[in-house]
Amino acid sequence: MDIEQFRKAGYDAIDRICDYYYSLRERPVVAQVEPGYLRPLLPERAPEKGEEWSNIADDYQKLILPGLTHWQHPSFFAYFPTASTFEGMLGDLYSSSTANPGFNWSASPACTELEAVVMDWAARMFGLDSAFLNDNNAGGGVIQTTASDSALTAIVAARVRYITEHPDTPLESLVIYVTTQTHSFGKKAGLVLGLRVRALDVDAGLREHRWALNGEGLKAAVEQDRAKGLHPFVLIATVGTTSSGAIDRIADVGAVIRDNYPSIWLHVDAAWAGITLACPELREEAQLSGINEYADSLCVNFHKWGLTNFDASALWVRDRRRLIDALDITPEYLRTKHGDAGTVVDYRNWHLSLGRRFRSLKLWFVLRSFGIEGFQSYLRRCISLNNAFAAHVRDSPIFELVTPPSFALTVFRLLPSQALPNGDGDVAHVNALNRSFWTALQTRHQLLLTQTEIGGVFCVRLAVGAARTEIADIENAWRIIENVGQEVLESLSDYTVAKQSQ
Amino acid sequence: MDIEQFRKAGYDAIDRICDYYYSLRERPVVAQVEPGYLRPLLPERAPEKGEEWSNIADDYQKLILPGLTHWQHPSFFAYFPTASTFEGMLGDLYSSSTANPGFNWSASPACTELEAVVMDWAARMFGLDSAFLNDNNAGGGVIQTTASDSALTAIVAARVRYITEHPDTPLESLVIYVTTQTHSFGKKAGLVLGLRVRALDVDAGLREHRWALNGEGLKAAVEQDRAKGLHPFVLIATVGTTSSGAIDRIADVGAVIRDNYPSIWLHVDAAWAGITLACPELREEAQLSGINEYADSLCVNFHKWGLTNFDASALWVRDRRRLIDALDITPEYLRTKHGDAGTVVDYRNWHLSLGRRFRSLKLWFVLRSFGIEGFQSYLRRCISLNNAFAAHVRDSPIFELVTPPSFALTVFRLLPSQALPNGDGDVAHVNALNRSFWTALQTRHQLLLTQTEIGGVFCVRLAVGAARTEIADIENAWRIIENVGQEVLESLSDYTVAKQSQ
Repeated sequence: MDIEQFRKAGYDAIDRICDYYYSLRERPVVAQVEPGYLRPLLPERAPEKGEEWSNIADDYQKLILPGLTHWQHPSFFAYFPTASTFEGMLGDLYSSSTANPGFNWSASPACTELEAVVMDWAARMFGLDSAFLNDNNAGGGVIQTTASDSALTAIVAARVRYITEHPDTPLESLVIYVTTQTHSFGKKAGLVLGLRVRALDVDAGLREHRWALNGEGLKAAVEQDRAKGLHPFVLIATVGTTSSGAIDRIADVGAVIRDNYPSIWLHVDAAWAGITLACPELREEAQLSGINEYADSLCVNFHKWGLTNFDASALWVRDRRRLIDALDITPEYLRTKHGDAGTVVDYRNWHLSLGRRFRSLKLWFVLRSFGIEGFQSYLRRCISLNNAFAAHVRDSPIFELVTPPSFALTVFRLLPSQALPNGDGDVAHVNALNRSFWTALQTRHQLLLTQTEIGGVFCVRLAVGAARTEIADIENAWRIIENVGQEVLESLSDYTVAKQSQ
Repeated sequence: MDIEQFRKAGYDAIDRICDYYYSLRERPVVAQVEPGYLRPLLPERAPEKGEEWSNIADDYQKLILPGLTHWQHPSFFAYFPTASTFEGMLGDLYSSSTANPGFNWSASPACTELEAVVMDWAARMFGLDSAFLNDNNAGGGVIQTTASDSALTAIVAARVRYITEHPDTPLESLVIYVTTQTHSFGKKAGLVLGLRVRALDVDAGLREHRWALNGEGLKAAVEQDRAKGLHPFVLIATVGTTSSGAIDRIADVGAVIRDNYPSIWLHVDAAWAGITLACPELREEAQLSGINEYADSLCVNFHKWGLTNFDASALWVRDRRRLIDALDITPEYLRTKHGDAGTVVDYRNWHLSLGRRFRSLKLWFVLRSFGIEGFQSYLRRCISLNNAFAAHVRDSPIFELVTPPSFALTVFRLLPSQALPNGDGDVAHVNALNRSFWTALQTRHQLLLTQTEIGGVFCVRLAVGAARTEIADIENAWRIIENVGQEVLESLSDYTVAKQSQ
């Protein structure tokens, strides 16, 4: 494809994307395809001769688009949101157009310099302590691919720090701390690194704590493990867990670590909810002071609830030398004049891979085009939409909130308590009922939610975040959910009387 | 930005990218900026109110473009190429536009299905054994972010396999094998995983082997380590090393592994040169039969020499269960009907992270638009351009080839042997001379090369791969290199006589 053919294909792509967004609301949220749908529609091999571009672009619309689940759909409430904004797309487009792997400052200076500046913009927008700023030359921020990468990087830095301070500690005795509510990447990091992982219990008798870790729970675990000769060396605490949006008590666990176990690294995973730090009124709930005082590292994914297209996982560290000590390898072919002089940041030493995209460009575009006010008003709107949904659940005779709403996440289940044959206590029975409800809900392709399990309780999550979701979409979702709930109850004769009596 | 504003901004971006490519040849290859150039040009904080898009796009051109080193420039010969094609950009643009993290089949079926098909297209284009195809349901291919990630994933799978077969092996006794010529990601994987790395010596007396590992060298190392109670469990062999394009003897080391040490995993890193497997006449040199017979895993980066924009690191494994055994974590919130039934691939269990871009789209676009013939003719053209450069070096009285040219890479140095005060044997002296040459060459911003060090010899690399490089660019590069070489020699009075006598 030559330059003029690209101009034509590029305009056409822009037009098709506009069409896509105009048509989004009318599409089913969930792809209406069965496993294996695509292979029979494609040849077994790549073509020998190049094909016309227009055929290829047409095939994208004919074969691929119908196989996508539309995460940008106004009625997508599953998992957590994945951001897509026009500003983000344009950032990625410009970045692709000058493709370079940006691993050294010298490899493409603007990539490093813009990232350092934009991460400081984001840190200031969040109210982070100046310790985390790139321009203080001690801490700093770097954009990683995913929250899994950010956590893995932090854990590796923590392990190297711990082993340096405690030489000859056998790897087999090291322990990564997470909680039962931490994202699965915590356990996966253990698999990747071959290290033990302990999931601290935060549910037993602690429902009033909203499934959050506190200092007492941490201290009990460390004492127990140390007595066994084990070495906990990192804690992954969470602001906004995936299951329920639970918020670990960062200041509380941070103080326990500083006062008693200063060798334990505190990584705060705020991949989803950390973005709320942009709103001053939410900072207390989002644990800003604890983060500022105690966190060794913090992760916030702009590609989740931060209006910036994947990948844009922001990782801040209090001490950049910890990353470099753990990850720096500089063979001759990667040496540069400025790197040797130590006058520049070489971001390759701040993460696991070598090559990297020019990711700060899209974040720069988003922050400038939305402005802090635009960013805040989007977050506040999502929270208010979620509150509207949670109010319906609260008022409903057949549903209950399983945990208090957290920012833009509601976790709920079907629970017509007065009609339960064995009362609330029979968890297995209510879980079975909710699995039926969930199975029925999945057949409604006008909306998508996901399920979870918290302390043995099966429940359903609704997360608001798609940029085009409006109050009408929330009302519509509630109508469908309520109808499905009623239908499921009606199909069970036990409940018929209860419903009539209401 | 609303949909119509995006149409305007999108057309404008396409136009600016066209302008960029029209102007590419006239730009300096290397960014003409000093460390810290950008921060003073930008405000300290993100703006409170959103800004006009046109200002933002103008700032990209005014502040960012001049700070980029242009990897797509026809005179960019540094490192290895990083691909950028219009087809690749359009793939990324469409992918961004429907942003979704594709970690499960259900999360967006087309993302998984297209990747499975396109990786099979690529495998067939390369002549890979059917063992590596997704459609055999035993092996399979997956697109990773970088070759570092691909290698790390393979090493983790290898470690889990080894520990499963040899329980109670202390992590401290495990050894990752690389060679002195392996890419630095081998050592970095050791840092990340906290495991020993041994770089096998391939230079002593083996210059005729082109810095390649053979079976004998491997066997000697394993016997030595096992006698010490160590457990080598994975070998990273390379087809096309970064320093010199060296090619380990895959069939030879593979046979030694199979016959003697079947617990050692053979990962073949062909990140750069593996792309030549697309050309049947290059398959013997690129070790196809050894790969097909013995490799447990193979990595080829389409984003290097494969015309596909970053990120597109293809990883094939012979036994997908090894990945899943090592990496599968499935909490309730990631369970799906089809995943539970085992009827679909959930690619999140094939790599380290959870979220992933829809990367197969750009590879599909590239393979269809170029066709296998277009792909091959691009590779052959790069090799022929490199051969033209190598011929100049060979014919020059003041330069020598340090290693034989490898595909599209030439490694050379300044060596006016008849004029050397202490003869060829004085490596330190020649290295100093070449460092002067290298320093002088870096001041010429019309072209960019990089340096390396092979077995104590400092040398310069020229790698061909930018899609717009023509023979005139090669001739121009040679002219500059020859002039700089002459100038460096002339500045040293010792050489003046030698030059005049030629």
